[in-house]
Amino acid sequence: MTDAFDHPWLGGLFADPDMAGLWSPEAQLAGMRAFEAAFSRALGDEGAARAIEDMAFDMDDLRAGNGQDGVVVPRLVRQMKAQAGDAAAVHKGATSQDVIDTATTIAMRDTLALIDARLAVLEEALRELDCRFGARPLMGRTRMQAATEITVADRIAPWLLPLADHRARIAQARPRVARLQLGGASGDRRDLGDKADTVAADMAAALGLENPPRAWHAIRDGVAEFAGILSLVSGTLGKMGQDIALMAQQGIGEIALSGGGTSSAMAHKQNPVIAELLVTLARFNATQLAGIHQAMIHEQERSGAAWALEWMILPGMAQATGRALSTAITLAGQVTRIGAPE
Amino acid sequence: MTDAFDHPWLGGLFADPDMAGLWSPEAQLAGMRAFEAAFSRALGDEGAARAIEDMAFDMDDLRAGNGQDGVVVPRLVRQMKAQAGDAAAVHKGATSQDVIDTATTIAMRDTLALIDARLAVLEEALRELDCRFGARPLMGRTRMQAATEITVADRIAPWLLPLADHRARIAQARPRVARLQLGGASGDRRDLGDKADTVAADMAAALGLENPPRAWHAIRDGVAEFAGILSLVSGTLGKMGQDIALMAQQGIGEIALSGGGTSSAMAHKQNPVIAELLVTLARFNATQLAGIHQAMIHEQERSGAAWALEWMILPGMAQATGRALSTAITLAGQVTRIGAPE
Amino acid sequence: MTDAFDHPWLGGLFADPDMAGLWSPEAQLAGMRAFEAAFSRALGDEGAARAIEDMAFDMDDLRAGNGQDGVVVPRLVRQMKAQAGDAAAVHKGATSQDVIDTATTIAMRDTLALIDARLAVLEEALRELDCRFGARPLMGRTRMQAATEITVADRIAPWLLPLADHRARIAQARPRVARLQLGGASGDRRDLGDKADTVAADMAAALGLENPPRAWHAIRDGVAEFAGILSLVSGTLGKMGQDIALMAQQGIGEIALSGGGTSSAMAHKQNPVIAELLVTLARFNATQLAGIHQAMIHEQERSGAAWALEWMILPGMAQATGRALSTAITLAGQVTRIGAPE
Amino acid sequence: MTDAFDHPWLGGLFADPDMAGLWSPEAQLAGMRAFEAAFSRALGDEGAARAIEDMAFDMDDLRAGNGQDGVVVPRLVRQMKAQAGDAAAVHKGATSQDVIDTATTIAMRDTLALIDARLAVLEEALRELDCRFGARPLMGRTRMQAATEITVADRIAPWLLPLADHRARIAQARPRVARLQLGGASGDRRDLGDKADTVAADMAAALGLENPPRAWHAIRDGVAEFAGILSLVSGTLGKMGQDIALMAQQGIGEIALSGGGTSSAMAHKQNPVIAELLVTLARFNATQLAGIHQAMIHEQERSGAAWALEWMILPGMAQATGRALSTAITLAGQVTRIGAPE
Repeated sequence: MTDAFDHPWLGGLFADPDMAGLWSPEAQLAGMRAFEAAFSRALGDEGAARAIEDMAFDMDDLRAGNGQDGVVVPRLVRQMKAQAGDAAAVHKGATSQDVIDTATTIAMRDTLALIDARLAVLEEALRELDCRFGARPLMGRTRMQAATEITVADRIAPWLLPLADHRARIAQARPRVARLQLGGASGDRRDLGDKADTVAADMAAALGLENPPRAWHAIRDGVAEFAGILSLVSGTLGKMGQDIALMAQQGIGEIALSGGGTSSAMAHKQNPVIAELLVTLARFNATQLAGIHQAMIHEQERSGAAWALEWMILPGMAQATGRALSTAITLAGQVTRIGAPE
Repeated sequence: MTDAFDHPWLGGLFADPDMAGLWSPEAQLAGMRAFEAAFSRALGDEGAARAIEDMAFDMDDLRAGNGQDGVVVPRLVRQMKAQAGDAAAVHKGATSQDVIDTATTIAMRDTLALIDARLAVLEEALRELDCRFGARPLMGRTRMQAATEITVADRIAPWLLPLADHRARIAQARPRVARLQLGGASGDRRDLGDKADTVAADMAAALGLENPPRAWHAIRDGVAEFAGILSLVSGTLGKMGQDIALMAQQGIGEIALSGGGTSSAMAHKQNPVIAELLVTLARFNATQLAGIHQAMIHEQERSGAAWALEWMILPGMAQATGRALSTAITLAGQVTRIGAPE
Repeated sequence: MTDAFDHPWLGGLFADPDMAGLWSPEAQLAGMRAFEAAFSRALGDEGAARAIEDMAFDMDDLRAGNGQDGVVVPRLVRQMKAQAGDAAAVHKGATSQDVIDTATTIAMRDTLALIDARLAVLEEALRELDCRFGARPLMGRTRMQAATEITVADRIAPWLLPLADHRARIAQARPRVARLQLGGASGDRRDLGDKADTVAADMAAALGLENPPRAWHAIRDGVAEFAGILSLVSGTLGKMGQDIALMAQQGIGEIALSGGGTSSAMAHKQNPVIAELLVTLARFNATQLAGIHQAMIHEQERSGAAWALEWMILPGMAQATGRALSTAITLAGQVTRIGAPE
Repeated sequence: MTDAFDHPWLGGLFADPDMAGLWSPEAQLAGMRAFEAAFSRALGDEGAARAIEDMAFDMDDLRAGNGQDGVVVPRLVRQMKAQAGDAAAVHKGATSQDVIDTATTIAMRDTLALIDARLAVLEEALRELDCRFGARPLMGRTRMQAATEITVADRIAPWLLPLADHRARIAQARPRVARLQLGGASGDRRDLGDKADTVAADMAAALGLENPPRAWHAIRDGVAEFAGILSLVSGTLGKMGQDIALMAQQGIGEIALSGGGTSSAMAHKQNPVIAELLVTLARFNATQLAGIHQAMIHEQERSGAAWALEWMILPGMAQATGRALSTAITLAGQVTRIGAPE
């Protein structure tokens, strides 16, 4: 509960329940369970698959195991085998990274879909602002100095135009991001023998993922591209938030908003809190992105060090982006005027 | 629960309960309560101070308020006044940032103390390793290539020597970090009138903080220096972890460890999981530090955007550092041999 | 000459003359000249266009102007007008950012082409390594510990497979990156009147750039996407370099290289200098990328602050990527063995 | 010449000749020469020391060597020996890192001195502004919204007060930063035998550096602390620049400046170019700092990869800080009014 996204009161500002849901322990567990069930099923053991799908887990054991092994999967599999029976086709020929990365991939895929949907909503909201206020005159400002007169449409354009490009990026990146992970111990699928390709194809189909030619245990550009899209989206919205905070200054007065925040010291103030939040979230993601790119440098067949850095950073970036989008949509709805009062 | 430090199973690897306790909502609330009680007391209203110290809060209201106002304090104060009475000397002349920053300062001060204590423990543990194994020969390796023969003491020295420098940094930085925040609405203490300096001195004494000449609402170098120390400490430990992971390679065999992690696919493996964790935590903090330095650029008397970026980043950096120290202490204790087998 | 890429002796390690050429002052000046000539020509003043194309500039005046105005263009235009005549159609209706950003865009476009060509060469070189050594056995290593036996092909795959994905990213991003900048004072093309769209279309065709519907003065996601591609490429190569440095360790001996570096202290050493260089360049770009994403937050119609941050960071990122590619190609050619000696 | 600090026209904005001089190739060569001369002298070979001090070098050979060996020192030493004679006491028992790091240390020490001196000048300039305008009323602005009336002194305080803290940090950090590097091949001074400590003490005294108990080849917290100070200083100045850019807005008008930049499109504009530059330089350094902290993770006795990352980043951070200070001093001198016109 030290995390801003998941905090008893900061959560009021930062939480995005829908996005948090995609990265929650429950979703991660569901993703790992889906992997193992699809794996058993692809190996022809429908009984094990069903058992895994219905299974409950001892969370204290998982936590202890993660501390010991660095990954949760050995204990998860031990619990699965204890319930499905040692003879069952459970995890045999797979490895921890297959399970965890596939669960992460499902979260990344669903995150892209959620972002895409919200981008569409925001586009609509900004187009509506453009319809209502776009023709009004506004002082253009370059280097924070009055330049030449523009229109409100010109101010809105840099908030609106990149959204379509972001949606195009998502569509193009999706097949590189939403890839089944399946490699086994050293990533070569050797323990799956002749049936490796069939198993992978079956699993990818069942899970709704791409089926790459081999495992990507130590190939992390898809993860880094995903993180880059998150930061590109929040960067655009940070620019919108910065503009609105500047427009709302006394003495400038280019925008009127409903629903600003109050102050503990000054009853008269109407703070553009969520416009500032957009700037915060953009700078947060820009910062984090460097860490994900550092994590591309995996050693050999698997780097525990680089991999765990992704776990620390990705869920926050996704939530920051989700919250930025929901914030921008709310903020667009709070605009009661842009441009000079009529 | 999407945060690695506070996660049902990842917490088994990442959680540092002592450090998490310093940055928990409970500790933050206690810090804010301590501020307000000390403030009321310094204003001579002992009754309000005691009421505040005993008060329970409606957390849903705080969350809603944080979402609305961007900070929790307006609602916190409203609840305090509702219980202490409108006539009581509660928060009057103070502002949100005074309350929140003072609570953060208490957390930073206590974090430095916890780190300092653990640095001392780690120094002792590494000195002991040095006593036991320091005289043994070891192949020096530069640019990952065998160089000339050194001793184990030479390998340990870069893990051990910086710890004393880190402790010196903590002692020197403490007065710049552990400063009472008290400024009122625009940071000038004007609403406190003639008694401003007395109130500040009383509060600083009561809270065990330095009493700076004025508020530091928009002066964030103390926060950034604090974050820098966190990353310097975890950086040293990251180097130790990287070395140990390299020393534990098959074919190198310069170290033997008890208690490594197991693999879901390979029963024979003993993974140096917590050595890798030190690398992860160091790279995490190095990444985050950039965000705290970006957040030094406050606009005017208070930047909601830059300030909130600190809230997002600081608790994670503190926990990463705390966990790196507890990990390094554990790891030092797991060493059963450094240098060639005898 | 303090810059590693452009340094009398460090340049021996870091310099990439071809890439430096694309970002050199000469190329920047050529790009700005090409913009202004295309602009005059699109306005129908062929004489001015030709004069601009043949013009020499007073560099001291440009430097003084850049210090005074923050951008070089006012003095550049003044020199152009002095030579082409005040009556000529020079720059009228354009603005500094049009000129500088278009020159940068040309550099970005040509950088993508150079990277793409080198990716193809590297793919070929790695495929050849794969043909020669791919079938040999190799110990798979996960978490830096011996895992199960793989083949050399499995080790090479993470160096090779992402290259095709990078080439796909370049092809997809190119239309979002290689866009004419033309907006005039506040970015609305107002001063160009009815002929704005025709002028833009003519210029884009002449310069070999996309013709976006409006200026992107304060829309920087194309620049950030470009920087992201640079870091994705260098990240992949950093992983290759890290692997090779690990493989070359005494006691591991998985690779033999010709042409390593010598030591001033140890005549016997063969340092895998350029393998390490790949790691350096990857971590450099990962670091820089955060700055470009921070620079997405432009204020209003133009941010001098955010824009200049791009100037400081982009040329280094491009050169680091170019040098990483040329280094990886060289390194692939130095491999005389991968896998166990036969 | 692709570097903003060293560029024919961008240099007009970014160049800081004094700081560039401390990090120039000439200064680096002088530092390396000083190391080798002091080393020969400490070994009792005054003739070699004098020969080294007077020596000219073949720069093409140095460049070729740096490309081959990853460091310039093997060729540098070869040239020295060729001139001083093979029998001379040249470099014997030292290593490349001793030479290069000592040269860097001299640059860091001199950088701290230059920064300290400029901080004193800036303090004086801001105190003078405070004397002239401090008592004037100003609207306090929090979250970019009008708050309560303050004075100009309150706005200036966050620019001025941290400067003394920065000077204290410099004084405290200096002994941890300005340390002789002397370790020999694997950093243990073994090749220097019994005289190692005497040689180190003599060299430290001759070079004006601290004499640490052993080499710090793989102990980089001093370098990272140095970089942190650079970014703390530029961060404070970035806040000052951001404030001044906001104060200079039309509609706000809280400051009047002489000497603003002109526009190529709008003759009437007076752009606060150097105020924006302060923001740019602060965000640049905040970005770079992450890279220096990443570079703390050295492998074993020397990491070519992490070390070279320092070479790429440090000179730019020093120049950005130097330029930020000279810019802030200039900017303070351009203020003709703060607060409301009288």
